[in-house]
Amino acid sequence: MPRFIKRTSKKAGLPPGTLVHIGERKTERVQITLIDYDETQFKQEEVATVEECFPFKDKPTVTWINIDGLHDVQVIEKIGQHFNLHPLLLEDILNTEQRPKMEDFGDYIFLVVKMLYYNDQAEQVEAEQVSLILGSSWVISFQERPGDVFNAVRERIQKGKGRIRKMGADYLAYSLLDAIVDNYFIIMEKFGDRIEDTETELAASPTRQTLQAIRTIKREMIFLRKSVWPLREVVSSLERGESPLIHESIGIYLRDVYDHTIQVIDTVESFRDMISGMLDIYLSSISNRMNEVMKVLTIFAAIFIPLTFVVGIYGMNFEYIPELKWHWGYFGVLAIMASIAGVMLFYFKRKRWL
Amino acid sequence: MPRFIKRTSKKAGLPPGTLVHIGERKTERVQITLIDYDETQFKQEEVATVEECFPFKDKPTVTWINIDGLHDVQVIEKIGQHFNLHPLLLEDILNTEQRPKMEDFGDYIFLVVKMLYYNDQAEQVEAEQVSLILGSSWVISFQERPGDVFNAVRERIQKGKGRIRKMGADYLAYSLLDAIVDNYFIIMEKFGDRIEDTETELAASPTRQTLQAIRTIKREMIFLRKSVWPLREVVSSLERGESPLIHESIGIYLRDVYDHTIQVIDTVESFRDMISGMLDIYLSSISNRMNEVMKVLTIFAAIFIPLTFVVGIYGMNFEYIPELKWHWGYFGVLAIMASIAGVMLFYFKRKRWL
Amino acid sequence: MPRFIKRTSKKAGLPPGTLVHIGERKTERVQITLIDYDETQFKQEEVATVEECFPFKDKPTVTWINIDGLHDVQVIEKIGQHFNLHPLLLEDILNTEQRPKMEDFGDYIFLVVKMLYYNDQAEQVEAEQVSLILGSSWVISFQERPGDVFNAVRERIQKGKGRIRKMGADYLAYSLLDAIVDNYFIIMEKFGDRIEDTETELAASPTRQTLQAIRTIKREMIFLRKSVWPLREVVSSLERGESPLIHESIGIYLRDVYDHTIQVIDTVESFRDMISGMLDIYLSSISNRMNEVMKVLTIFAAIFIPLTFVVGIYGMNFEYIPELKWHWGYFGVLAIMASIAGVMLFYFKRKRWL
Amino acid sequence: MPRFIKRTSKKAGLPPGTLVHIGERKTERVQITLIDYDETQFKQEEVATVEECFPFKDKPTVTWINIDGLHDVQVIEKIGQHFNLHPLLLEDILNTEQRPKMEDFGDYIFLVVKMLYYNDQAEQVEAEQVSLILGSSWVISFQERPGDVFNAVRERIQKGKGRIRKMGADYLAYSLLDAIVDNYFIIMEKFGDRIEDTETELAASPTRQTLQAIRTIKREMIFLRKSVWPLREVVSSLERGESPLIHESIGIYLRDVYDHTIQVIDTVESFRDMISGMLDIYLSSISNRMNEVMKVLTIFAAIFIPLTFVVGIYGMNFEYIPELKWHWGYFGVLAIMASIAGVMLFYFKRKRWL
Amino acid sequence: MPRFIKRTSKKAGLPPGTLVHIGERKTERVQITLIDYDETQFKQEEVATVEECFPFKDKPTVTWINIDGLHDVQVIEKIGQHFNLHPLLLEDILNTEQRPKMEDFGDYIFLVVKMLYYNDQAEQVEAEQVSLILGSSWVISFQERPGDVFNAVRERIQKGKGRIRKMGADYLAYSLLDAIVDNYFIIMEKFGDRIEDTETELAASPTRQTLQAIRTIKREMIFLRKSVWPLREVVSSLERGESPLIHESIGIYLRDVYDHTIQVIDTVESFRDMISGMLDIYLSSISNRMNEVMKVLTIFAAIFIPLTFVVGIYGMNFEYIPELKWHWGYFGVLAIMASIAGVMLFYFKRKRWL
Repeated sequence: MPRFIKRTSKKAGLPPGTLVHIGERKTERVQITLIDYDETQFKQEEVATVEECFPFKDKPTVTWINIDGLHDVQVIEKIGQHFNLHPLLLEDILNTEQRPKMEDFGDYIFLVVKMLYYNDQAEQVEAEQVSLILGSSWVISFQERPGDVFNAVRERIQKGKGRIRKMGADYLAYSLLDAIVDNYFIIMEKFGDRIEDTETELAASPTRQTLQAIRTIKREMIFLRKSVWPLREVVSSLERGESPLIHESIGIYLRDVYDHTIQVIDTVESFRDMISGMLDIYLSSISNRMNEVMKVLTIFAAIFIPLTFVVGIYGMNFEYIPELKWHWGYFGVLAIMASIAGVMLFYFKRKRWL
Repeated sequence: MPRFIKRTSKKAGLPPGTLVHIGERKTERVQITLIDYDETQFKQEEVATVEECFPFKDKPTVTWINIDGLHDVQVIEKIGQHFNLHPLLLEDILNTEQRPKMEDFGDYIFLVVKMLYYNDQAEQVEAEQVSLILGSSWVISFQERPGDVFNAVRERIQKGKGRIRKMGADYLAYSLLDAIVDNYFIIMEKFGDRIEDTETELAASPTRQTLQAIRTIKREMIFLRKSVWPLREVVSSLERGESPLIHESIGIYLRDVYDHTIQVIDTVESFRDMISGMLDIYLSSISNRMNEVMKVLTIFAAIFIPLTFVVGIYGMNFEYIPELKWHWGYFGVLAIMASIAGVMLFYFKRKRWL
Repeated sequence: MPRFIKRTSKKAGLPPGTLVHIGERKTERVQITLIDYDETQFKQEEVATVEECFPFKDKPTVTWINIDGLHDVQVIEKIGQHFNLHPLLLEDILNTEQRPKMEDFGDYIFLVVKMLYYNDQAEQVEAEQVSLILGSSWVISFQERPGDVFNAVRERIQKGKGRIRKMGADYLAYSLLDAIVDNYFIIMEKFGDRIEDTETELAASPTRQTLQAIRTIKREMIFLRKSVWPLREVVSSLERGESPLIHESIGIYLRDVYDHTIQVIDTVESFRDMISGMLDIYLSSISNRMNEVMKVLTIFAAIFIPLTFVVGIYGMNFEYIPELKWHWGYFGVLAIMASIAGVMLFYFKRKRWL
Repeated sequence: MPRFIKRTSKKAGLPPGTLVHIGERKTERVQITLIDYDETQFKQEEVATVEECFPFKDKPTVTWINIDGLHDVQVIEKIGQHFNLHPLLLEDILNTEQRPKMEDFGDYIFLVVKMLYYNDQAEQVEAEQVSLILGSSWVISFQERPGDVFNAVRERIQKGKGRIRKMGADYLAYSLLDAIVDNYFIIMEKFGDRIEDTETELAASPTRQTLQAIRTIKREMIFLRKSVWPLREVVSSLERGESPLIHESIGIYLRDVYDHTIQVIDTVESFRDMISGMLDIYLSSISNRMNEVMKVLTIFAAIFIPLTFVVGIYGMNFEYIPELKWHWGYFGVLAIMASIAGVMLFYFKRKRWL
Repeated sequence: MPRFIKRTSKKAGLPPGTLVHIGERKTERVQITLIDYDETQFKQEEVATVEECFPFKDKPTVTWINIDGLHDVQVIEKIGQHFNLHPLLLEDILNTEQRPKMEDFGDYIFLVVKMLYYNDQAEQVEAEQVSLILGSSWVISFQERPGDVFNAVRERIQKGKGRIRKMGADYLAYSLLDAIVDNYFIIMEKFGDRIEDTETELAASPTRQTLQAIRTIKREMIFLRKSVWPLREVVSSLERGESPLIHESIGIYLRDVYDHTIQVIDTVESFRDMISGMLDIYLSSISNRMNEVMKVLTIFAAIFIPLTFVVGIYGMNFEYIPELKWHWGYFGVLAIMASIAGVMLFYFKRKRWL
């Protein structure tokens, strides 16, 4: 649960625009990668200082600066100064507790989205914040740690696959967004598998572990929804937005991302419905089992309690109990008790308790 | 449950517009059927290659190209090139995990809807994706496998029944949509029957199988909603849409389809309400039965435990127990015990436990 | 439950506009009643063939044609031709599974609403579909069977009560709608009585029949909502509608009907709230009773099990049990057991189990 | 519950605008009070016939006619004629089952709201319908019975407290509305107290009475919501309304009433949340107690059943049971049994059942 | 719970605009602090009477008057007169039961928000009402008691940190709002910790205290929502508002506050989801435990009841019971009983009850 309560409060009281990194430090070193391309040329370079990227800003080629690691506040600050970014925007980049959002600053568009990873060890989803800034001919992306989700895009640029080399910075931004959303489907599949496993377990023999599993998935779902729902609005406002930074031809691509987002949301909601049903099944299965236990107890008690009473009768020490003198009395009593038991068993059979 | 988690993730990382078939391969051979008609002439032909259809594109007659089977990416690609379709549209046709949607591309309108089949063996609903492209004088439809839902439309064209031969491509597209939605009612009836059966079972003698049945229907419902709800928006945006491809006279027909869609949604929601009630009934029926079991146990215990105590008393070996010497002691004790039992039975009768 | 799954599927595959009667045949004979009136004259007649009504169409007087019984498709067809009605409208009249709706066709307005009857034998609500067509100076109404809800309107026209003879066809249509909605209140009262009865039963001594009753009412409620909720939109779109067929002076009357509709919806929702609470009460009452049963069992067991143990001790056959020789041993043991029982009873009293 | 099903159906079939009083007759005599004032003069009078009020209608002073008691239809009718009110409006005044609403008739504005009283004997909220008609320089108010809620306003006018004598009829209408809404807070407090009491009871020792109390409060809440929610819309449409009858300077006062209405709604919703939680607590408390009962039973049974078995062994009459001959056999068995009991007690202690 | 029912009713009946302090008196003395600054100068002073602040009103410098303690109605009244504030506004300042709201009075903007404190002793959240009035060059803030939330802002002004000294009164108002919202995150963390603790307890060994804790948190949540939800609308209407008092450059800062508000709301909703899940877990855990208790009981009963019956048989006093004469009869019976017990244990093991 700690995921719901990161220390976002440590900024309380600071003036707005103060740059403080909020969140875990997920990587050792801040890594800056520069990619610069147009239809005819391509250049990829890992740069040591952020200043090396600045000359590319005003070139007509598309420039993509990717920063992995947010803990070096100075890097963010320098970029802010050079690209003339609003201090509140820089603050948002550093605060990894941000909600997905889109803000149009006129000269550039600012996007915050969540990249999701499935942590197989902890069996939980982890979210990393990705900030994108789209300018006229450049895109700056900030990640908390180096990830492989953008690799496909990088490769596509390098090899000139698809349309990407012929298009502008807006298409690049779209491609990055698309890569992030596509990645959600992988997370959804993992979840689908887990739900399926839990369902099978639930049908076979539910234990407290099953309950625990249902509860964990439910918790993860709450977390997922928080990352996914606001994305819908982000993409939709990008698509509708009348920013000149986004060319009309990009509209259809954004609509495609929007459709994918809706699909992810639909899946999350279906999962939620299924999980809420699972808890009911679990509870009814506990009730069922208690019912079964009760039946066993009742059958034993109802058969043997009367019999024990009968044998008790002939254990009494009255001087005059005529049956005790009868030669076949003992066997007669045994026979009577056998028939009592028989009647009981028949009764329970008819009630379908056996 | 696999239905919720088809491998849509396999596209993650590919450039947008890459044509990959996502979904099961439901038919062996791609089958292309060409129907071309106007008020005076009619021509139906199964063509071997898609190129044979192309000359019909610019004829004034209405042309309907139906493709059954999506796994041959090349066919889709050729159609895309000849009809000048957007790559993302082609991608959507191939991805059978699409959500129902409508997109207006100006020169043509793209529709994705779900055709539902009831699989009697598996006792579940199956969805097949149908894509429709409506151009000025042509309609292209893509199905995952040959189905019989469109047969009625085909026949109507052939025999000139109704208005269809006098109307344009927009009426054809409407007719196909209408055929799909009409087919939903059949599915709804099957579901209604299943719910009715389950209800009867629930009232008579609910078992774990009943619970399983409720749960399965509930799951199917989640699936159905995902197919049906978005359709509402699709039809409504078609109706409102100001595309010149759809003549004003078609508006009323689309409104009719819209009404049917709402009716289907209403039915799905009523079913949901009924099913959620059924789970409560099931749980209360388990509780009821446990109550009954408890009563049987309690009656047995409460009658015989005191009696067993009494006989125990006279089984004690004290030297001086005066009652033991009495001649009618034994029968006296039997009489006393009989009255204790009688009082108990009367008490339980009054409490309505018997 | 069959009410949710009438055979609406039998139309699947037919061309739109095909006239097929869907629903039960509720009356033997199609009965056509013609009423024609203005401020000064009044004429009411049961006509044999629908053609007799046609001359009244273009008269300046208000003409009301009422058709009871829908199974004679030809009557509907002839009306359709003469009054120039859209084939889809005729289809909707015949399909009694229609959702309440309002459609403005320019020359006339088409309304579908549900008339509700309470079937006292079956103890359930039954819905009959009523279609109204409002033209410039005429109203045509279609009912599934002759009913008495419109009688009050008929009488008012005949006797010239109220404003009706001075107003146009729009006021007549309003009056019919008003009569239908007013009738809902009667249904609501019946339901209120049933809910009240069930509540009383629930408070006194709930049985499985009570549960059954709750469940039936709940089901009826689902059915009622389907009839009532869409009506809201129907009346509201009539009121807002800018059709020249509805004079401005009628607006306030429609608003009144709208208010009544909202009142009915409010009542339905209140009933739903109350019923959902009743199920909880039922379940808690089962739990309560099980608790009581458990207590009885526990009290009996806890008092007699220790006592039975004590008497068992002195039933042992050891050669040397000193107590057995004591003269008052037996009575001493009885006294000890009495005090054990007393302590137990005191304990249970303090725990408020007695 | 009767409160949900007053005989509103008795109007079914009557022509619209027929004046019938629907509701209980809550006062003996219709009482008409006239108040006429401006900044300099004030006149209050109880008049015998409504006609005495009519001359004040067109005076420039503000005139407030208050009618207590609705059963005298003629009074309402005369007012309707003189003030030229719409028949449907008069009908609404008489039908005390009206939903709160606001209607702008151009020359006057019609308001229906609910005044709430707490009936301490019946321990329930009672609603009285108040209708207000606001004209250019007059306000007419209709109450079901004389009440004390308007007294404060009356006094303020008389003593010239606050702004009221300087303002017009719109301010008077606002003041009456404000008095009604302010009165809701008193009801809310009563409810708050009852909920608090029930909560305390629930925490201490919940009984069936507690359940009954929860259920009653829940029912009252359903009733309250029906009165309060529509009021929101009423006040908001008054505020937004562009009627010339309401001067711009009144806007801020109406916004204040609106804020109060929202506050009341908020409180009702909070109460609902709390009550729904209470039922869960009640159910879990029953479960808890059953658990406790079960534990007591199990502890008794588990300790004494084995012991009883042991003493039974030495009650057997076999000729050769060596232990029976041992001199200390009896005390040995007692010791063994004591240790069995000890082990059991230790086991239950460790399981925290004791 | 008293928090939901403060005595807001004591104003009922008073004329609107009457100044009455509603709420607890949280501080002894009304404390008035004046801060006056522009880019070059700064002045902070605690003034004895409110009149000392008035000369600063029309100065071009930014003036911030902070009043701690609301019970001195005269102070509020004087401010109202001098700053020409609407009486209803003054009334709202004094009524601490206000809902968060924003009202634009043209010359000034009025804001009511809730400042939240976590009372560690009572383990509950407490809300204090803060009213802000923003004029052209001045801000007046009203608090119920001196708090430390505004200290950071005060310090920032004094030391000239950040932008604040260069900006106008609108930025000051924003800064105060921001400080309040930032403070919410601290409350959220406290809650997160409490939820986490309760969850851990729930997983380990839930007791009635756990239930109590869940219930308390749930109650607090209802309270929190009431304070937080309306804030969203407040900030959003501030941002959208076209008041000339708020310069365009402030827009982005307000959007930032808006984002934070949404984040807080998101967290509250996530907490609610988690808590509602916790109650289900608690209930299922009670059921589980009852199940376990039942099993123990059943195992004991099912093993010993048959055995007790067997020993009872040989305790009977029949003259002719052949087994009693057998020399090894006793040990034979012991052996038989051991095997019965063995079979039982095996059976329960297979059923996984052991």
